[in-house]
Amino acid sequence: MLREDVTEAIRAAVFEELAAVGYARMSIEGIARRAGVGKTAVYRRWRSKLHLVLDIVSAIAVQGLPAPDTGSLESDLRLLYEVTSRALRHPVASQVVPDLQAEAARNPEIAEALRKALRDGQDGVALTVVAAAEQRGEVRAGLDHELALDLISGPLYWRAVVIRSPKLPKGYLAALSRATAEALKAL
Amino acid sequence: MLREDVTEAIRAAVFEELAAVGYARMSIEGIARRAGVGKTAVYRRWRSKLHLVLDIVSAIAVQGLPAPDTGSLESDLRLLYEVTSRALRHPVASQVVPDLQAEAARNPEIAEALRKALRDGQDGVALTVVAAAEQRGEVRAGLDHELALDLISGPLYWRAVVIRSPKLPKGYLAALSRATAEALKAL
Repeated sequence: MLREDVTEAIRAAVFEELAAVGYARMSIEGIARRAGVGKTAVYRRWRSKLHLVLDIVSAIAVQGLPAPDTGSLESDLRLLYEVTSRALRHPVASQVVPDLQAEAARNPEIAEALRKALRDGQDGVALTVVAAAEQRGEVRAGLDHELALDLISGPLYWRAVVIRSPKLPKGYLAALSRATAEALKAL
Repeated sequence: MLREDVTEAIRAAVFEELAAVGYARMSIEGIARRAGVGKTAVYRRWRSKLHLVLDIVSAIAVQGLPAPDTGSLESDLRLLYEVTSRALRHPVASQVVPDLQAEAARNPEIAEALRKALRDGQDGVALTVVAAAEQRGEVRAGLDHELALDLISGPLYWRAVVIRSPKLPKGYLAALSRATAEALKAL
């Protein structure tokens, strides 16, 4: 294997191991075995299991989506939710993210990496949507941005990751977008 | 120790071990050691680590709060959030719940127990609040209850458990209650 291919094979293996056994049970041995490389190939690239996972989390965050720009808050939210609900069905969200959240409760480095990944990803896009609505006068200029982000991101995460509802009923995202737009207008 | 005291000591030890090391790393040995009992005392009461944890989760759910009944949706939500935000600062929410959520991604029994605990606890109270608002005509009768629960429970959970924000700014719960009431009225 080429050097870059080995790196990619290890990254893919970390991802699969995380989804399969979780952070706590995951070992460098298991990753190396799954990637078909030796343990030293892993240690040459990353100092520890923690560093490997932090690297993966950052890589996920970088896959930033362009912010929707439809001209109305409700339809911007609708587009954002379409993309987010697809992302939440991915194993990263349904297995790896809760796992890292659990780890974050005990490990400040993981907590900080997750916060950064959120800020650069989902929250970054949501902020752009809110700022556009402020500029159009759809919501009050200078509203509490943190609270706005909680209102935008919380409900779908709760449904997909906490309740672990396998499928959203028809009309769910439309109703959620309408309700959230009204919530933001009340801030 | 009396028989009941041993049971209680083991329950407390499970709780502390869960918070300290997490489900994946927790062992019956560790629990027995922390409780100051022998391993057989644990196995006499619970078949496995899984059963012990399921028992703890159910016990948490049973601590059901009475539903607020102030006569208005916004102030009912406000009271619900006051109680929930305190509960979310407890180690159960900040460490044990994310941990069990992570485990639930791989273990359907834990997933089901968590869903049941939610239904009997937080969701049960929120449903009562929504039903009262329907009766008063503050929200549309027959609105989507599942979506209503996502809108009520998601934002605060996102803030406390996902973002892990250590402290809510002044006025946060009041603004959240007002915004969520408006969201529910749009359903």
